[in-house]
Amino acid sequence: MANFDLHILGCGSALPTMRHLPTAQVIDLRDKLYMIDCGEGAQLQMRRMRIRFNRIGHIFISHAHGDHCFGLPGLLSTLGMLGRRGDLFIHAPEELRSYVQMILDSFCRGMDYQVVFCPVDTRQAEVVMEDRSVTVYSIPLKHRIACCGFLFVEKQKEAHIIKDMIDFYQVPVKAIQYIKKGEDFVTPDGEVVPNSRLTRPAEPPRRYAYCSDTAYSPAIVPQIHGVDLLYHEATFAEADLPRAGETFHSTARQAAEIARQAEVKRLLIGHYSARYDELDTLRDEAQAVFPNTTLAQEGMTVSLS
Amino acid sequence: MANFDLHILGCGSALPTMRHLPTAQVIDLRDKLYMIDCGEGAQLQMRRMRIRFNRIGHIFISHAHGDHCFGLPGLLSTLGMLGRRGDLFIHAPEELRSYVQMILDSFCRGMDYQVVFCPVDTRQAEVVMEDRSVTVYSIPLKHRIACCGFLFVEKQKEAHIIKDMIDFYQVPVKAIQYIKKGEDFVTPDGEVVPNSRLTRPAEPPRRYAYCSDTAYSPAIVPQIHGVDLLYHEATFAEADLPRAGETFHSTARQAAEIARQAEVKRLLIGHYSARYDELDTLRDEAQAVFPNTTLAQEGMTVSLS
Repeated sequence: MANFDLHILGCGSALPTMRHLPTAQVIDLRDKLYMIDCGEGAQLQMRRMRIRFNRIGHIFISHAHGDHCFGLPGLLSTLGMLGRRGDLFIHAPEELRSYVQMILDSFCRGMDYQVVFCPVDTRQAEVVMEDRSVTVYSIPLKHRIACCGFLFVEKQKEAHIIKDMIDFYQVPVKAIQYIKKGEDFVTPDGEVVPNSRLTRPAEPPRRYAYCSDTAYSPAIVPQIHGVDLLYHEATFAEADLPRAGETFHSTARQAAEIARQAEVKRLLIGHYSARYDELDTLRDEAQAVFPNTTLAQEGMTVSLS
Repeated sequence: MANFDLHILGCGSALPTMRHLPTAQVIDLRDKLYMIDCGEGAQLQMRRMRIRFNRIGHIFISHAHGDHCFGLPGLLSTLGMLGRRGDLFIHAPEELRSYVQMILDSFCRGMDYQVVFCPVDTRQAEVVMEDRSVTVYSIPLKHRIACCGFLFVEKQKEAHIIKDMIDFYQVPVKAIQYIKKGEDFVTPDGEVVPNSRLTRPAEPPRRYAYCSDTAYSPAIVPQIHGVDLLYHEATFAEADLPRAGETFHSTARQAAEIARQAEVKRLLIGHYSARYDELDTLRDEAQAVFPNTTLAQEGMTVSLS
């Protein structure tokens, strides 16, 4: 099966600590890279994790808080210095347009590639980007400023040919591409062989949902229902629930509550407040509600299978 | 003697590597902090080196290339989150004004402190900043865009009192402060005791010169003559001299040549190109011209004494 990997570059929050970097992730799907958020130091983490800069085609930014976008200037500059030529698409709330433009005007003149800014309406779930491998939807989140998550849905794969049946019906090679897409086969005698006799269904498309930053918001549950992997922010422990409310962040228990309601397969939590030296409490509080919870950490790669 | 320490946060150049961070330094002089350049990741390095954010009063930026200023947004945001109240002064070429203003407008609204942008004329040596501890001068450099170094000159310290002579002449306590500043003492009988009999001279003021980024520029030699410590960029080895010329950078040998001509006490080189895995060549080429040369490295602290 083609790869669908999530690389965690950073999973801390705004205040710098020695334990975590600000938010940045890279999805490696069928050998194309998609970046989600780009906190300060993201490009250095990519070097450390040996992620190749030039395979990034799209960057998705959730919102205009610095710990989610202060790595962009360095990354955009580096791509230029490395001689990139292909367009780079940045999908982000409108609030970030002037920031991106200022970076380009001030620091990226004369570079050989174009940055295309694609505004995202954070108030509704809509298709943000689509290519041959994936469709990306926005997930409206509840934060202090306009903010959305992103749902990555792998494109439906082609059905698997059952070779013995292909041989049995003497299906010509040129017909196979249509059968893979679901068509029936008509023999030279006019017999209709139903597609289901010639193929096994493809694996269901894999889905990854990224939800950060957000207050507890059950409204997102229907959209992310049953995803293979949910990354949900868990800035605070339950003891700091009031602080979570004030700042429009979630507790680990609330993240797990969303995962439980959405019946996701696996939950990854992150965006830890700098106040916690140890994350045992966050993990325990989440696992009490949703056992298949993992603490994100820098340098981690999670494969969707 | 009061401390005068230079902390190296980063000494790489523009392309990220796993060996170096982009340029940033902090001077700790009489327990006040002065930052020079602020490459991406500078605030994280400060955490690692346990340098306290809130003791910074002034930041000096040499020029508007990203590897010297992409750490500013994160640092300014963090200072706000930490509840800073005192003004912060940024001394930088005019080109950086709009960048700083955009950071403040987009990411620092509602914070409790003011950032004061102080433009520096990079074309001439002039006083950039002066307080009770230090006078900072600009050093005009030769780079692709407006760029200057910075010369830190410690304020003249007071002379040391010779206690035996103070006792001998029965100098009253209130007169001592004037004697420390150089005045003679007149006894009740009208006898004039010359200051030189009552004091030993203070140590000469220490001086630190920061010169990055720059092509080989002997024009700076008179201004930095005899400094206690010179940090001079040494982006390239001698084998890449043509590339140094094209990019307005220096080779290690050229940095050492400046140090030799200026008869500085010690040379620190940095701003290494990402192309060098090992720095032995740069060090050897510099030491052949100026033996008291040290390779800068991340996390290093150099004390001026």
